[in-house]
Parts: sequence; structure tokens; C-alpha cells
Amino acid sequence: MWSKISDMLDQEYNNMIEIRRYLHQYPELSFQEEKTAQFIADTYQKLGIPYETKVGGNGVVARLVGAKPGKTIALRADFDALPIQDEKEVAYKSTCQGVMHACGHDGHTTILLTVAKVLKAYQADLAGTIVFIHQHAEELAPGGAKPMVDAGVLDDVDLVFGTHLWTNTPYGIVQTAPKEFMAGADRFSITVQGKGGHGAMPHQTKDAIVIGSQLIVNLQQIISRRINPLHTAVLTLGTFHAGNTFNIIADTATITGTARIFDKDLQRFIIDEMETIIEGTCQSYGASYSFEYDKGYPPVVNHEQEAHAVIEAAKQVKEVTTAELIEPSMTGEDFSYYLLEKPGAFFFTGAQAEGNFQAHHHPKFDFDERAMLVAAKTFIELIKKYQ
Amino acid sequence: MWSKISDMLDQEYNNMIEIRRYLHQYPELSFQEEKTAQFIADTYQKLGIPYETKVGGNGVVARLVGAKPGKTIALRADFDALPIQDEKEVAYKSTCQGVMHACGHDGHTTILLTVAKVLKAYQADLAGTIVFIHQHAEELAPGGAKPMVDAGVLDDVDLVFGTHLWTNTPYGIVQTAPKEFMAGADRFSITVQGKGGHGAMPHQTKDAIVIGSQLIVNLQQIISRRINPLHTAVLTLGTFHAGNTFNIIADTATITGTARIFDKDLQRFIIDEMETIIEGTCQSYGASYSFEYDKGYPPVVNHEQEAHAVIEAAKQVKEVTTAELIEPSMTGEDFSYYLLEKPGAFFFTGAQAEGNFQAHHHPKFDFDERAMLVAAKTFIELIKKYQ
Amino acid sequence: MWSKISDMLDQEYNNMIEIRRYLHQYPELSFQEEKTAQFIADTYQKLGIPYETKVGGNGVVARLVGAKPGKTIALRADFDALPIQDEKEVAYKSTCQGVMHACGHDGHTTILLTVAKVLKAYQADLAGTIVFIHQHAEELAPGGAKPMVDAGVLDDVDLVFGTHLWTNTPYGIVQTAPKEFMAGADRFSITVQGKGGHGAMPHQTKDAIVIGSQLIVNLQQIISRRINPLHTAVLTLGTFHAGNTFNIIADTATITGTARIFDKDLQRFIIDEMETIIEGTCQSYGASYSFEYDKGYPPVVNHEQEAHAVIEAAKQVKEVTTAELIEPSMTGEDFSYYLLEKPGAFFFTGAQAEGNFQAHHHPKFDFDERAMLVAAKTFIELIKKYQ
Amino acid sequence: MWSKISDMLDQEYNNMIEIRRYLHQYPELSFQEEKTAQFIADTYQKLGIPYETKVGGNGVVARLVGAKPGKTIALRADFDALPIQDEKEVAYKSTCQGVMHACGHDGHTTILLTVAKVLKAYQADLAGTIVFIHQHAEELAPGGAKPMVDAGVLDDVDLVFGTHLWTNTPYGIVQTAPKEFMAGADRFSITVQGKGGHGAMPHQTKDAIVIGSQLIVNLQQIISRRINPLHTAVLTLGTFHAGNTFNIIADTATITGTARIFDKDLQRFIIDEMETIIEGTCQSYGASYSFEYDKGYPPVVNHEQEAHAVIEAAKQVKEVTTAELIEPSMTGEDFSYYLLEKPGAFFFTGAQAEGNFQAHHHPKFDFDERAMLVAAKTFIELIKKYQ
Repeated sequence: MWSKISDMLDQEYNNMIEIRRYLHQYPELSFQEEKTAQFIADTYQKLGIPYETKVGGNGVVARLVGAKPGKTIALRADFDALPIQDEKEVAYKSTCQGVMHACGHDGHTTILLTVAKVLKAYQADLAGTIVFIHQHAEELAPGGAKPMVDAGVLDDVDLVFGTHLWTNTPYGIVQTAPKEFMAGADRFSITVQGKGGHGAMPHQTKDAIVIGSQLIVNLQQIISRRINPLHTAVLTLGTFHAGNTFNIIADTATITGTARIFDKDLQRFIIDEMETIIEGTCQSYGASYSFEYDKGYPPVVNHEQEAHAVIEAAKQVKEVTTAELIEPSMTGEDFSYYLLEKPGAFFFTGAQAEGNFQAHHHPKFDFDERAMLVAAKTFIELIKKYQ
Repeated sequence: MWSKISDMLDQEYNNMIEIRRYLHQYPELSFQEEKTAQFIADTYQKLGIPYETKVGGNGVVARLVGAKPGKTIALRADFDALPIQDEKEVAYKSTCQGVMHACGHDGHTTILLTVAKVLKAYQADLAGTIVFIHQHAEELAPGGAKPMVDAGVLDDVDLVFGTHLWTNTPYGIVQTAPKEFMAGADRFSITVQGKGGHGAMPHQTKDAIVIGSQLIVNLQQIISRRINPLHTAVLTLGTFHAGNTFNIIADTATITGTARIFDKDLQRFIIDEMETIIEGTCQSYGASYSFEYDKGYPPVVNHEQEAHAVIEAAKQVKEVTTAELIEPSMTGEDFSYYLLEKPGAFFFTGAQAEGNFQAHHHPKFDFDERAMLVAAKTFIELIKKYQ
Repeated sequence: MWSKISDMLDQEYNNMIEIRRYLHQYPELSFQEEKTAQFIADTYQKLGIPYETKVGGNGVVARLVGAKPGKTIALRADFDALPIQDEKEVAYKSTCQGVMHACGHDGHTTILLTVAKVLKAYQADLAGTIVFIHQHAEELAPGGAKPMVDAGVLDDVDLVFGTHLWTNTPYGIVQTAPKEFMAGADRFSITVQGKGGHGAMPHQTKDAIVIGSQLIVNLQQIISRRINPLHTAVLTLGTFHAGNTFNIIADTATITGTARIFDKDLQRFIIDEMETIIEGTCQSYGASYSFEYDKGYPPVVNHEQEAHAVIEAAKQVKEVTTAELIEPSMTGEDFSYYLLEKPGAFFFTGAQAEGNFQAHHHPKFDFDERAMLVAAKTFIELIKKYQ
Repeated sequence: MWSKISDMLDQEYNNMIEIRRYLHQYPELSFQEEKTAQFIADTYQKLGIPYETKVGGNGVVARLVGAKPGKTIALRADFDALPIQDEKEVAYKSTCQGVMHACGHDGHTTILLTVAKVLKAYQADLAGTIVFIHQHAEELAPGGAKPMVDAGVLDDVDLVFGTHLWTNTPYGIVQTAPKEFMAGADRFSITVQGKGGHGAMPHQTKDAIVIGSQLIVNLQQIISRRINPLHTAVLTLGTFHAGNTFNIIADTATITGTARIFDKDLQRFIIDEMETIIEGTCQSYGASYSFEYDKGYPPVVNHEQEAHAVIEAAKQVKEVTTAELIEPSMTGEDFSYYLLEKPGAFFFTGAQAEGNFQAHHHPKFDFDERAMLVAAKTFIELIKKYQ
């Protein structure tokens, strides 16, 4: 059975590309993924696998019950896109202005739908139950994972796995970590309230652009000076917007950003230091401020046994040249919520196209589509291990 | 005749308020002032004063030829509005989202229309010709003054005058300067081109927000350290925009601003220093940039004799408590183009409402409407001087 | 008599160079000028002109009573030097390590001693009394002028004059201003108190160098953004010292500087803004601070009539090519204290050596020695005017 | 024998305190430790253990040959002090102005001398040879370790051990790491060459203090933005000196600092980024610079087997409550040079005095003297292991 499944996957490869490129052309922003959810539901409908929609939001959950008894294993794929303008010149370029699958979730969805299809074909031989969790809104806190877990998608699940196509890693490599694997990802916004006025009369104003710029410079020192150099944290300011016209001094600057941290104490410390710097900087200029910090996804912490299972499974896939344990990544993922509930592991499937590396979240992001096959086969090997 | 005109102006005051508030509710952005131009043209039509429209753009020019021979005197009022959201709570608040008469041009227009009306009533007694220049697009370089001058509006004019309702100065005060009166107002834009990427992987990016912030901080030192402390210049950054979402490192930061300078050499020096700082700062971060600097309006330099004429005229107006020569203002005006062609002077008509000072270009800007009467009467006294 | 005096001055020129170069080799710091004072006293002793020493400190005052009645005119020269290492390669280079006449006070002293010598020769023809005020400690607040005035040096004086050899202005030019001539010069010091520690463990420290650097950057914005661009002020940080060794994080940074201001209100405003920025910046980093601001010399404000007398006197000197009224200078001088007591004026005697401009307070400072003759002759012409 | 040695060490404790406090009162700077070297030599003289002086500088090496054959084990202690003013109020406070044993090297020396004394007493029972390496100049690159190694001190040595009294860790705890234990410690100096001048005329200068401050702020971004957040590095600016007097704009700013890095590639990257930022910042201001970077001690990388031997040895010491493997420290040590030659390990002996934590290199640094006994006993247990 398992070698036939693998062969069938190879035959599905062209279909996978087709599905992925279709999804790529019709990306939807987090929490707005209605058509994508419908597409997924329609696919399960056609496959004859029972499913639920609107699970914890736009989530779709399908459930394939094998003919034999066994463990219940959940596989998860996210399906939302990002507010980025697609700058690739390819036929399957995004058709939606300012929205793009710049992180590979189109691929994740394709992988899961394909795994479902091949397992369905061998349902009679399958031991246990496979739960296909199609999750909305991974890119935008509070995310879709938590409401789907709260909705009970893991209730009778024994193990949970997921993967991320990963262009930082070349095709053919599968990676995970035994414990901490991905950082917590928090979101914050800062509003500096100065006082606007005529561009020629700065002394009558409190220039929000100068104050905001000074603040951004000052905030660098949290990472460079205030945290233990052996600890790991990232503080990124993602947006800075102030002013409407060149000759009017702006009264307000709005800054948003993200912090990535593996540790609760460090999170608390960074929030406090941010507040101290924001307060001191604004006070220096007689400005006021608001500061909102939303603790985002917890860090993705794998379960050690399941992480090793991923490595062993990947080693069975002939396209995999290397399956390895790596250092944690600073990126965040709401897969953390599944792992807080049930044993499991998350892993990276190397997807860097040779000669065409594009970073995740970049306007020219793309991935080596063969990686979808690697991921699908790794899932299959994992399931095989628990038969 | 002249005392009757003054009385008639007093009687027109309620009409003036009505016109001004109407215009205030329907502001139009620079170069888009079609309805306002139409309103002005319609008014001249009703008054029976011949006029031209579409002069050098949306400009309207009316011409009242007195029954007796005499000098040709041009009076100018601008009529465009600003991209500011009106935050006043008044009945005559702007009805256009994000557009506002936040500089008093609605008042200027009202003044000129009213002066035209009263002079028309006494056309039989008037010596010489009065040219009413209703200028579009003062707020946005390259402005409306230059194309109107190029279109010949001053060709047979002997003298030209204009005023700005001025909320920095209390009601009852008229001010001008014998020579330099208002600064040159230049516009520039800077684009910092870094490299975007995932918010958790700063080392793969060149963070345009950090670079842009550093740049804004660095640029402060042109004024604080590099120009002669006895010289006068302003460098204002009016907008800073970078980034689309909190967790993606921005690849581009766009900054616009204005420089205010009285002196050509200093202008050249500041442009060079800006370029040096932009280049050095971007180079520090391996980023590239573009820098465009548009030399805007030249400084408004009054003609000495006509400036004194303004002071003498204002002293004849009973509402004027003080008529004085002052230091130059750092604000800019394209009235400069008229004064480069013909003798004349520009002056401020104090319009600060008691207990309710609002700076020009502020979202709550408003002025003491009685100042419109003061300005109208000062124009009449000026015309009387040249009879 | 007066043309003979002028001839005698020409003959004294070589002596003047000799005196000046002697003084140049033996500079003494402010309030430590004991040998220089002794040299001055010895000279008056030899000239037979009565003098007092230790006037208000190291000051020396000589008094030449003319044979005829007349006004009492005081002339002042300062004689202290600066803590700068002489980097000139000349025979008369400073012999004192780290001390240098880098501002021309050696020349001032020479001028006064020479004027005294020539007037002594014509004492029988002189109307009125000439008071020679040799003042110590001009370079370092609280200065020598105030204690000398307090000691009564101006008590019976009718008029007071002084000059500064001025290398910003070419030889042959004499300059003064009718009213404000030189700015007030204040002194301040800031101590940032962080927390020191091991260079590899920044998170256990509060890095005084980073905080101090941030502070210096922030302080630039007082001049660039917070004062009226039409007003004039300078804020200079002259020293920054922190840290003893490369691998220990400094606990303290000590910063000193000077502010130059013509106006009391602006002085108050700048002090307040400095405190606000220092407090906010230190608070941002959890550091504490001390801030001491010593209001220094008041601005030098000439008396209008005497300023014009200077111009007229200078025009009589054949070496003077231009005698002119100029804009104020941002430099400070404690000559202000004399002018607060009695009518008089201070003026600049152009001393820029052709092809060798060196700024005041520069390690290679030097001046065109012929300017000493110009200054001496201008003093003589001034005295002649009041005969 | 070994339990007697341990008892003898207990009896020596008061002598240890005496030696340590004597050394504490007479600290000597790196490369100037002549009297300390003499003190050590005199001690070996009295003990009757043969020694050499002036080994690779001020180094002293003694050699105790046991009566029985066995391994040759080197123990190393450093003995230089730091340019810090002792601010403790204790009887044994440093008597040398501005010099202080602020890192515990007085303790290290005491430990080694005491171990030598007790082993000498049992020389007849000792198998193998113990080499006592008293090393000068650990605190100042290029350090004393390299020239001592070059001089051959390890030539016939089988194993080498050393310890650091460590106030970051409470008394009773011994710590080491299996591989990377301490970071590489590099030293650099930057000179910013601006242009000095009069404090009132900034436009004629290039203000080295403002440029230097901006540079320090800019350099923060190497750690905060340019290195992989998972990598570890420290960049500390230890000194900033500029300017001689408050009212003269400084022409030069001199900055020194240290970088701590575990990795050659990262070292190269940081040097390049520093140069880029220094060049760009200076260019922004038209200033020039010099930048010297001395690659300092390599990282201290323990040998795994010997590191475990340390842990096992420490567990035999009754005062040791915890012996543990820890994360690397960012501090540097030239013990690295010994470990590049021979197997061995370096370890921390917890020395934090209860209720009186003082950081290394702090002016009030002190340690719990009982830790000297712990270290001595751990060395003895290590030697015992290799009998």
C-alpha cells in the first residue's frame, strides 16, 4: 500500500501544481478567506471525505476514518495570504491588487488536499483516523489556530503535525528542532501624539516625525544593550506613517511592529523597556503617546519524540537529501497552540528554488514546487510510522 | 465717495460672512478648484464686471475700468484649499472629506469679491483700472501665480497688492516689511530604498524604517550645526511613510518636506548638505536613495515705497489699531512672482480670534471674520492713495 | 601732537611684535595669569605710569592723568590664554604644554601697553585721564570684568572702549555694531549617571556612553525645531568624556558646552528645553543626571553714539580700508559688564593674515600683527575725538 | 595523602586571605606587573620550588616534580590588575591611585601559590609534575598567554587547567561548558577627525562630538538589525573622549571599544559593518576617520573530556553545592591560547558574596574569599584524578 501511495503522489504532482497556482492567483487576506475555504470544502466534497466548515472562523476540517482501528493523527495547513503586492512576472501571479500568497500557504493547502486524496484511495487499508485541519488566518494575530483548537478540532486527536515550505532552506532538506522551534510573535502599535502646524513655524509645534524617528532609533538599544547577549529576541518596526503633506508638520506618527521572543520573562522585560523608552522619548519632546502590545502566538515548542519521528519519516523519502535538527527560527507560527494541547511537531520543508531565492514575505516570493511533493511524502511516512 | 464706500463695506459684512462660509464648506485642492472658479466667475457675471476664466489654469481675472483715467492696480486673492481633515465643530465645517480651507483663502476670495462689488457701485467716480486676480493653487508648487503672470495678467498693471489673513497676529493689526517679507518655500522628496523581508529576520534585510528614521535625525544637524546661526532657514519633514504591515520589514521609506530660505547661496548649500547626509546615511546601511528637490516659490520681497503705502493706507482704517513693519516670516507665498514683475507689496491682516488661536494648516484652523472687513478697507484706502 | 603720536606708533611697531611674541610664548590660563600681570605691572613701572595690581583678581589698572582737564576714558585689554595645545610651527610658539594665546589677548595687551607708552610721551599735551584696564580671565566665566567693575575701575570713568583682534575679518577692516554686538555666552555641564560594568555584559549596566551620545543627538533639536527660526541661538557641546578603558562599560559621561543667546526669554526657554531633553533621555535609559547651567556674560550691547565714534575714529586711520557697522556676532565677551555701567563701545580690528586664516580657538591660531597698529591708532583717534 | 592535603588547605585559609589582601592593596596594570611577579617568585623561593621569571614578559613559571612518574599538568593563574579607581571602603583597598584588582586575579594568584605550597608538602607522594603558570597581562591584548605559550611553557605538558573566580555566580557553585565557554574579545579604536573652532561658529567647523555621538548611536544597529538574532555578539564602546574646553568645538573624538564573538565569519562581518557605518557617518558630515581593529583573544573552547573532569572533580569538594555545565559567557580570556595547544578546560568558581554582588570590572568589585578555597580544592581533586 505505502509504495503505491508514494507512486500515486508522484502522479498527482501536476495536479498539485495546478491547484497551487490556482490558489496563488486568488489569495485572500487573513480572516477574509471565504472563497479559499469554499474551494477547500468543494474539494473534500468531490473526494467524498466528510468535512465541516466555519470551524472557529473560516476553518475547514475534514476527517478520514480508516477501515482499521488506530491512532488519530491531525495534519494542519494554513491558507491565508498577505497584504503584499505581487511583483513576480509569472502566469500564475496574484490577480488581487495588494494581496499575495507570499509565504507559501497556497502550497500547504495543496499538500494537505493531495495527502487526503491519496489516503482516501487507500481508506480500506488505513489504520486510524486522519484529521485534515485547514486553518485560516495564520498571518494575523490572534490567528485561526486558537479558535479552531477552542472549537475542539484536537479533542480526540492523539498526535498533530504540520509543515512550512521554507525558502531559506534548499529543496531536498527537511528540518525541525527537538524543543523550541519557532519564536513567539507579538504585535504592538505606538502612536506619538505631538502637535501639528505650519511647516515654516516648527517652534509652534511638536514635530511627530522627528519624535517618532528618534523613538525608532532609541528602540534599537533594547536589543543592542539591554538584553543578555546570549538571549535571543527580535524587535522589528514594520510600519511608520506620519503626515499628509510636505509642508505641514505632522501631529501624529503611527508605528507598528513585532517582537519575537522565546521566553515569558524576556517578553515582560521587553515590554517594560519599550514603555520606558517611549515614555522618556515623548517626554523629551513634550509629546504624549499610546502604546498597545498584543502578546501574539506563543513559541512553537515541539515534543521531542515526535520531532525525532519527523526526522525518521523524512529520511524514508527518496527526494530528501538531508533530514536534520536545527537551531530555532525567530519566525512565529500559531501552530504553537496545537502543540500546547497535544503531542506533535512542526517542521520545515526546504523549498528554495535553485538560483532564485526569494525571502518569505517578499514581493517576489516564490518556492520550488517540488517541495510540495516532499512534504506530502513526509506526512505519508509519518502516518505509516503510527500504523 | 470713499467714506460711502467704507459704509457700504460695513453693510456688506453679513454678505461677506455668508460667502466665506459657503466657500469654507466646499473647499477644493490646488489645481482642482473648478467649482470655486465657477463661483467666482458667476459672481462677476452678476456684478456685471467683465472677467476671464481659465487664466493660466483655474485662474479668474476681472477688470473694472473706472470712468476716469488713472493707474492700473491689481489686487490678488488665492482660492485653493489644503489636504487636511476639518476638525472644527461649526455649522460651516468643510463638507469634503480630507479637504479644508485651513489657510484662509476662502476669506481672501471673499475680500476681493466684496471690494469689486463696492467699487463697481462707484465705477463712475473711479480713476484708473482695478484688476482682480483670483489665483488658483497657491498651496502647491509650482503654484498658480507664475502661469497667471505668464498668461499676461500683469501686462498693463502699474502696481500689485495682496494680503494674507493671518491668525498669528491679533485682529486689528496690519503688518508688512519694507523688503524681504516671506521666505522661499521649496519642496523635496526622498526615497530610501532598502531591502524588505520577514520581520523576524532583520539580517536578511536593509530596514528602510530604521534608515529613514536615522536620516531624519541626522538632517536636524543642518540647521543646528551647519548654517551660520545668524542666518535663517527652516527644514521641515512633513511626511514619512514606510511599510504595509507590522511584521514585514519595509523596503522603502518615502519622506517629503519643505525648506524655507531667503537666500540663493544658502539654498544651494542646504541642498548640497542634504544630499551629503542622505548619501552618507544610506551608504552606512548599504541602501540606495533618490532625492528630488524642487525649488519652490522665490521669497516674497516687497517694494519699499509700496510697503510704506500699505502702512499708511492701513492707518486710515478705523478698525486698525496698529499698522507696523515687522521681521520677515518663514512662511512662503507665490505672491513673489507678481513682485518680481511689478512694484507692489504683500501684507498680513491680523485675524487671530480672541481666545481661539488656531495655527494656519491646523485641522481646527479658523479666523476672526471681522479681519475680512479690515483687509477690504485697507485695499480701498490703497486704491484711494493712487487716485 | 596727534600726528607725532601716530608716527611714534609706527616706530613702536617692532617693539609691539617683540612684546606680543614674548607674551605668546608664556601664556597663562584664566585666573592663573600671575606672571603676565607682573609683566604688565613692570611695564607701567618702567613707563612711570601709576598702577594698581590685584584689582578684582589678577587685574592691573594704570592711570595716566593728562596735564589738561578733560574726560576720563577707559581702554580695556584682556590677557588670559586658553587650554589649547599650540600646533603652530613658529619661533614664538607657546612654551607651555597645553596652553596657548589662541584668541589674540597677547595682542590686546601689547596694544594697550603701546598706547600707554605713546600717550605718556605726550602727557603734557593730553586733556583728561586715560585709564588702562588690563583684565584677567576673559575666557572663563565668571570672568574678570565683573570683579574689576565691582572693584570700582569705572567709578570716575566717562567712556569705555575695547577691541578684539579678529581673524574672521581681513586686515584693514574695523567693525562694530550700533546696539547688540556680541552674544551672551553661557556655560553648562551635564553628568549622565548610568551604571558601569563588564564590556561583555551590557544588560547588567546602563551604558553612559550610549546615553550621552543619544543626548547629544537629541539636543540638536532645540536649535533645529524648538526655537523660532528668526531668532538666533547657538548650542555647542564642547567636551564629552566617558570611560577609562575599552572593555569596561562607562558609568558616567560628562558633557560641557556653551549657549550663545541675545535674549533673556530665549535663554530661559533653552535652559528649560535642555532640562526636559536631558530628563527624558536619561529616564528612557533608567539613568540619572545632574545639570548645571551658569548664565555667563550678558550680551555686549554697544552704546549707539560711541559705536559711531569708533567708526569715525577708524576712518581717520590710514591703514583702515573699511570701517563698517555689521550684524552681531555669536561670540561672547565680558566687555558687556563695562557697557552695562558706562557709555562706550567694543569693536573688532580685522586681523586675518592674507592666505593664512586661522579661526579663534584653533590650535594653529595666529593673526596679522599689523592689526595691533591699526587698533592702537584707532584708540588714539578715539581719544583725540574727546579732547 | 589527599584528605590531608584538603585539611592543610583549610588550615591555609587565613594565609590565603592575607596573601590575597596584600596583593589587592598593590595592584599593577597589565605589562607593568613587576612587583607582583617578584612577590610570586619570592614565594616559590621560600617554598623551595624551582621557578623561572620573565617568561614571555613578566610571567613566572614554577615546576614541582613529584617523586613518582605521571602526567604533567599545568595550572594557570593571571596576576594583572585594571585601570579602575577602587571605591570600596575596606582595609585592604587598593593603595594605587586608579589601579585596582577589579577582576579577582589577586585571588587566582593566591589559589595557585597555596596549591603549590600544599603539594610541595606532599611532593614525596605526588605522581607526575605540576607546572604553575603565573601569567601576566590577561586584561590587555595581546595578553600574556600567547608569549608564554610561545616561550614553551606547555612544551611537555599533558593537560592544562585554569579557573576564574566568578561573582556572577553564588559561592558554592562550579561551572564550565563542554565546548565553547568564553567569547573572543577584540579591541578597536576609532578616531573621528572633524574640524575644530569657536563654539559660537559651528558652521565653520565639523563638530567631532556630534559626529561621534551619531556614530555611537548608529553602531547600535549592527547588533539590533544586522546580525542573525540567533547568533551571539556584543559590541561595546568603552570610552569616548573629545574636546578640551566647553566653548571650543572639538576637532577630534576618540572612541575605543570591544567586540565579543564566538565565530570567525561573524567577526569578519562585524568588522566590515563597522567600517561601513563609520565611513558613511563620517562622510555625512564631511569628516574623516581612522579605524583600528585588533582581533583579540580567540574564544575559550574547552576540551570535552577535561571539562567533564572538572565537573567530577568539583563534585568531590564538600563546599561545592552545584557543579554544572552552562551556556557560554560573552566575556573573553586569553586562556584560549593554552587550550589551542593542549587538552584542558577552564572553569568558573562561584564567588558572589551573599548580599554584596559586585560585577567584575566595577569600582566596588569584591568577592567571597571562601571561593579561593573551593578553587584550590577543585584543582587538588583534578590532580588526584590524573594520579
